[in-house]
Amino acid sequence: MRDTYLEEYFIFLRFPSVSTDEKYADNVRACAEWVSGKLAAISLESKIVRTRGHPIVWARNKHRSGRRTVLIYGHYDVQPPDPLELWDSPPFEPVLKNGYVFARGATDNKGQIFSHILGLQETIEKNSDLPVNLDLIIEGEEEVGSQNLGKFLTDNRDALKCDVVLVSDTGMIAPRTPTISYGLRGVAALEIKVTGAQMDLHSGIFGGAVANPAAALARMLATLHDANGHIAVPGFYDDVAPLQDWEREGWKKLPIDPDAEMLKETGAPALFGEEGYSTLERIWARPTAEVNGMGGGYQGPGTKTVLPSHAMAKLTFRVVPNQRADVVVDLVKEHLQKNLAPGVTLEMTTGHHGPWYLTDPHSKFGKAAQRALKKAFNKDVALIREGGSIPIVSDFRNILGAETLLIGLALANCRAHSANENFPLENLEAGIRMNQAVLQELAG
Amino acid sequence: MRDTYLEEYFIFLRFPSVSTDEKYADNVRACAEWVSGKLAAISLESKIVRTRGHPIVWARNKHRSGRRTVLIYGHYDVQPPDPLELWDSPPFEPVLKNGYVFARGATDNKGQIFSHILGLQETIEKNSDLPVNLDLIIEGEEEVGSQNLGKFLTDNRDALKCDVVLVSDTGMIAPRTPTISYGLRGVAALEIKVTGAQMDLHSGIFGGAVANPAAALARMLATLHDANGHIAVPGFYDDVAPLQDWEREGWKKLPIDPDAEMLKETGAPALFGEEGYSTLERIWARPTAEVNGMGGGYQGPGTKTVLPSHAMAKLTFRVVPNQRADVVVDLVKEHLQKNLAPGVTLEMTTGHHGPWYLTDPHSKFGKAAQRALKKAFNKDVALIREGGSIPIVSDFRNILGAETLLIGLALANCRAHSANENFPLENLEAGIRMNQAVLQELAG
Repeated sequence: MRDTYLEEYFIFLRFPSVSTDEKYADNVRACAEWVSGKLAAISLESKIVRTRGHPIVWARNKHRSGRRTVLIYGHYDVQPPDPLELWDSPPFEPVLKNGYVFARGATDNKGQIFSHILGLQETIEKNSDLPVNLDLIIEGEEEVGSQNLGKFLTDNRDALKCDVVLVSDTGMIAPRTPTISYGLRGVAALEIKVTGAQMDLHSGIFGGAVANPAAALARMLATLHDANGHIAVPGFYDDVAPLQDWEREGWKKLPIDPDAEMLKETGAPALFGEEGYSTLERIWARPTAEVNGMGGGYQGPGTKTVLPSHAMAKLTFRVVPNQRADVVVDLVKEHLQKNLAPGVTLEMTTGHHGPWYLTDPHSKFGKAAQRALKKAFNKDVALIREGGSIPIVSDFRNILGAETLLIGLALANCRAHSANENFPLENLEAGIRMNQAVLQELAG
Repeated sequence: MRDTYLEEYFIFLRFPSVSTDEKYADNVRACAEWVSGKLAAISLESKIVRTRGHPIVWARNKHRSGRRTVLIYGHYDVQPPDPLELWDSPPFEPVLKNGYVFARGATDNKGQIFSHILGLQETIEKNSDLPVNLDLIIEGEEEVGSQNLGKFLTDNRDALKCDVVLVSDTGMIAPRTPTISYGLRGVAALEIKVTGAQMDLHSGIFGGAVANPAAALARMLATLHDANGHIAVPGFYDDVAPLQDWEREGWKKLPIDPDAEMLKETGAPALFGEEGYSTLERIWARPTAEVNGMGGGYQGPGTKTVLPSHAMAKLTFRVVPNQRADVVVDLVKEHLQKNLAPGVTLEMTTGHHGPWYLTDPHSKFGKAAQRALKKAFNKDVALIREGGSIPIVSDFRNILGAETLLIGLALANCRAHSANENFPLENLEAGIRMNQAVLQELAG
């Protein structure tokens, strides 16, 4: 790998382009300008598009008819680096140690999108052009929910018309194992509040004669699942598409030991999930109902003998094909209302939701990507789903009408979003090869 | 009432003498010093007795042989004021509105013990002495279980030998209705913590395969009761003594409408309690299992898609004759352990506990108190039990061999332990008269 690659990667990483905190806004903009300048320097036509938030960098080659059009998406913004004291070196002063680059954004997403940029650079240097029509969209708001990307896609729907979208912002199932993520779970949020008396009450003076909202909430939350981890909300699973046999079989053969790895990573005393499904199936293909937070009454030190006035819980549901987030939330609301204990009232507030995603890795483009990844890594491709949500892939489908291939380069121990985030140079190099191979294969 | 009474009462209330939270320790001590100074100022011999926790104020007149000896007990510590936003005026800046004084501790117990102090002051000013030998014990740990009072009583068993104990830390059944509480519930505390993973986890990446401690806690708490409000812990009711007929009948005739009053006072949408018992029976003679507080995961604004690492609940149990707090807690622990969901661990920490109390209101001193209260209020005395706990009355019985007469001055809407705690000046005045009448009657 050329020395200049690492120098430029480090420059990219030094911008503290934290999108969630207004105090970094100038750094975010400076980072966008640097990215745009880099893309212009490799002969792409590049511009910075203003949004109501942070700007989007949009670069393209000269499109010629008769060629396939590929959109590559990435983001140049990063998560906040806190807590700083957990970092072994400053988060915005990248260092190379034993083949790993440590910095905030090293993996998520600067390292991954930069490997694509370097791949494009090499192809252009070799051939003076790319084998496909290319649009490169690198946004600055992924870590804050991509609030302005949808409008950008809608406003430029025609110019951004493409055959397929490539995104490297997901994980590899194991080191040196090329991975296509063809499915994601969606998410839906619901906040519930149970209220009894109008104020906290003395549990001696009133206890026994007035309902306890914390107990009532617990009682209600306990009805969400049965003892085997199945969600007990009537109708919840009605629209869940069963796993295909090839997925079930393929996942069993992946070169990982998911149970051992998850136990080690989480430190949980044991794994627990829905009976009848493996760990990977539970995360990748089964919906969940999770309590993300709950609270009520006195949580400070010592004892306070109150009957709380109210108690609340924040719930999210991971949804899978072919569930609809709004339908699921309505079912849950009906169920909770039905299981409300006497003597309290219930308020429910629906939060944000995003759909699941599923594409066919055996489609024409999926197969092309598989061939390319096999070539770049010299290893068979792992076909996986992921348990998280990437709302923008649905935007690409709904607004641009294009499927997305998620060909991520992150490893499980890259510590995205955490202290000591890192990216192996080996993956940067693999990404450069992957970009070239994928564009070649997609060109047909 | 003299102006100085109100001024001094306000000074007393301004001390944030919150005993449960270490950060108030200096204020607690300052409050004790002020109380001791006040007692010295009315010619009692007063001193501050150190304990391993907060200090005890101990004052007395010169004891003379041939007189009855009376011990008056109260406490100068208060409950925490949270949640602060519910107070109409700051909890430690007392205000007088329409005859009611609003402040934390206004009723519980500063207002009540202060009315005794003022009664003593008037008698001493009038007669240069009291009609009885008096010990006045005002402690600083009532709200945290009076952990050090027992040792104090034991250490001073001989000096504190007395015929009867007076405590005004309970309620009046209705305004202007003198009330003797002859029974109390006990209390036992248990804190439980459920732990899954060692850190909060991303609910997309891990959700479904790792247990959710908040959900596990809810599931466990839901097993404490059945749908009819009965406690579902096996053996919980085994030692509960049935109500006497005279109590059941007497309570029906009390000059109150408990259901209507409780609904109005609490603003609860409906009453709820154990099937088969009236509201008064539920509070005064039946045990409870209450969630005083619970928490886990993200409780801030918006959504955070985490699987919490842990969740906790603070429980207390009100116990009644002839239950034993330690037995009850052991039964609950066994029950919770048995109902622990898979994939999480459970820690249980037993907190303070205090026994129930039951005395005979028709004893010699009980009858004397009835006569005095009838004189002070010009109305027949209501004989009731209370739902709260005053563990120290058992200490008085067990250590000093003395029965306690609970002659409280709190009204149902005084909001002890809640925001906007208040005390009517009318009750402060009644307390002054009551103190004088009771000491006179007990003198015989």
